Amino acid sequence: MLELRLVQGSLLKKVLEAVKDLVNDANFDCSTTGFSLQAMDSSHVALVSLLLRSEGFEHYRCDRNLSMGMNLGNMSKMLKCAGNDDIITIKADDGSDTVTFMFESPTQDKIADFEMKLMDIDSEHLGIPDAEYHSIVRMPSGEFSRICKDLSSIGDTVVISVTKEGVKFSTAGDIGTANIVLRQNTTVDKPEDAIVIEMNEPVSLSFALRYMNSFTKATPLSETVTISLSSELPVVVEYKVAEMGYIRYYLAPKIEEEEDTKPE
Amino acid sequence: MLELRLVQGSLLKKVLEAVKDLVNDANFDCSTTGFSLQAMDSSHVALVSLLLRSEGFEHYRCDRNLSMGMNLGNMSKMLKCAGNDDIITIKADDGSDTVTFMFESPTQDKIADFEMKLMDIDSEHLGIPDAEYHSIVRMPSGEFSRICKDLSSIGDTVVISVTKEGVKFSTAGDIGTANIVLRQNTTVDKPEDAIVIEMNEPVSLSFALRYMNSFTKATPLSETVTISLSSELPVVVEYKVAEMGYIRYYLAPKIEEEEDTKPE
Amino acid sequence: MLELRLVQGSLLKKVLEAVKDLVNDANFDCSTTGFSLQAMDSSHVALVSLLLRSEGFEHYRCDRNLSMGMNLGNMSKMLKCAGNDDIITIKADDGSDTVTFMFESPTQDKIADFEMKLMDIDSEHLGIPDAEYHSIVRMPSGEFSRICKDLSSIGDTVVISVTKEGVKFSTAGDIGTANIVLRQNTTVDKPEDAIVIEMNEPVSLSFALRYMNSFTKATPLSETVTISLSSELPVVVEYKVAEMGYIRYYLAPKIEEEEDTKPE
Repeated sequence: MLELRLVQGSLLKKVLEAVKDLVNDANFDCSTTGFSLQAMDSSHVALVSLLLRSEGFEHYRCDRNLSMGMNLGNMSKMLKCAGNDDIITIKADDGSDTVTFMFESPTQDKIADFEMKLMDIDSEHLGIPDAEYHSIVRMPSGEFSRICKDLSSIGDTVVISVTKEGVKFSTAGDIGTANIVLRQNTTVDKPEDAIVIEMNEPVSLSFALRYMNSFTKATPLSETVTISLSSELPVVVEYKVAEMGYIRYYLAPKIEEEEDTKPE
Repeated sequence: MLELRLVQGSLLKKVLEAVKDLVNDANFDCSTTGFSLQAMDSSHVALVSLLLRSEGFEHYRCDRNLSMGMNLGNMSKMLKCAGNDDIITIKADDGSDTVTFMFESPTQDKIADFEMKLMDIDSEHLGIPDAEYHSIVRMPSGEFSRICKDLSSIGDTVVISVTKEGVKFSTAGDIGTANIVLRQNTTVDKPEDAIVIEMNEPVSLSFALRYMNSFTKATPLSETVTISLSSELPVVVEYKVAEMGYIRYYLAPKIEEEEDTKPE
Repeated sequence: MLELRLVQGSLLKKVLEAVKDLVNDANFDCSTTGFSLQAMDSSHVALVSLLLRSEGFEHYRCDRNLSMGMNLGNMSKMLKCAGNDDIITIKADDGSDTVTFMFESPTQDKIADFEMKLMDIDSEHLGIPDAEYHSIVRMPSGEFSRICKDLSSIGDTVVISVTKEGVKFSTAGDIGTANIVLRQNTTVDKPEDAIVIEMNEPVSLSFALRYMNSFTKATPLSETVTISLSSELPVVVEYKVAEMGYIRYYLAPKIEEEEDTKPE
């Protein structure tokens, strides 16, 4: 039997919004450790990895490991029916082909049960090895979202270049080119406004803006985003989920021919 | 001659918004009692009944009973041109084929006259007998609107079931089922937040959500809605219009075959 | 070399929004006097004239007169990437076929360069003679915008009639007619709320609402609008751009046959 009670139910709503544009169907895996999901996007280019640790739930009961295949569009439809202050409980009986989402209003006057059919989904669980990254940038998530959206109005590809002084986002398109430079800045009033650059080695990598824009759907989850870059590895774009976990997006760099790589 | 002056002109704007999606053309009836409308929706399934009592107007002059056929879409276009703080006066000469809506801004700097052509509309005035209802639910109108909208994302039909403890709204669709239970609650800070259930006999009735969602267009008119249910009668969904009247929607229950009636 | 630094960069953003719906491609003219544009709309009916005086810029360097052909849609895409508090600098080298827009955030943490290709655009510069107008109306720009939008829901043409007492905006369409009268009012708390009518001679002129609605895209630039009318001249609809200039729209009156000119 499975029963996971999340007082801050809006987190689950936001998590779904952060995943559902990228992935249609996926298995949620439930173990004593936590509630997690790992899935490739539908075009098999990007990978999403979500973890909500069991300690983050007010009540967490998971008698045995369970993998529940869900259509994320349908799940999102149901979670949109939860109020932002509602407590959400996920319930499933062993061997059942349904999962129930229960929404309790803070005053307990309104209680809703939404029962959704589960699906059988083939999935290969990819091992993601821990890696050392050449450069790690931490910045306000809203700023990252704004930059990806702005550059999309000019081009399709963003080149992210990190030096000690700052990080540069560049693109080029039919109407012209754009370069946006953020300087390292740790002397800010609010720590979440800082732009922190840990650079072991400078990097300059190209990515499809389409995916970056999908990743920024996670912006409401966290005030900061961490971007980890290495020339030989997929970029990791990570948003923390309160104190209880994270959502991480992985995307391989674009290998472009010489003549396409000069956005500036 | 007809001249009806409504200081709180925004009420008339809201009334139109509450009716125009359901009814295209209708007769407004004017008598010494008040300004009223009764009309079936275009598919002849639901009935709307509106009354604005003469006492609610700052000035009310109606020399003889008058029935004015209006296209509600066009009337709504004109009323949308009134500011929310404007005083609205409805004017018509005897025998005229037009009606004039006059909008005065609170400072009297701006005065607008909109003249609309009237139409000849056949209408049978249905007598609506007073009835005893098995169960009457009074609840916040915003909550009712939210529930109808939420359930529409899952199914097409809502089953409303009333017991002493509460009222349950249920639906079922391809992706699963939903049950939302509201408990009677009269110990609230603001009386309009109360959920009050008067039950003489438990009822459980099915209705098309499409119509319920149309009815909730009246939500801006009143903080509360009253739902009156009896197994043999159309449901009545009523919104008060300030102190001066009401808008009531009537909808017959769905009679479904056995296999379709199990949303839970 | 050209380098124009505008601390209140949002003004340039708003100017573009006020012009781009009317004009696709246009030459921006740069001289020691200022940064200006004059262009007919794409259907050659309305004329836009923009001036931003050099004194309004924090830094203004223009070594020689320069005419830069720009696609306003593309320029708007780039300016939308500037934050509302950003400082905007326009830069061009002599003989270059590109222009650069630089956006600096107030904290200087973020610096963006957008480079846009210039175009060759044929343009005849029309001399606009100073003229005496029969009537000049100054009114809140938001009110003018609201009136044009409201009348558009009824008809296609607005008749603007000025008398000593006030200004009347009228239209007629299939569903009826509308007249909106504003009275002269100079005893207001805020000077920008005044309705000031300077009338030497009464006028009554017809204009296409479609263009008037395009002109009101400039509403965010200024709290007031000035409408100058003469029976033999195009109307001038003018919005001030802060202390540094203006945007003026010119539109010839409609000459209609007798039977179409009775909106009231």
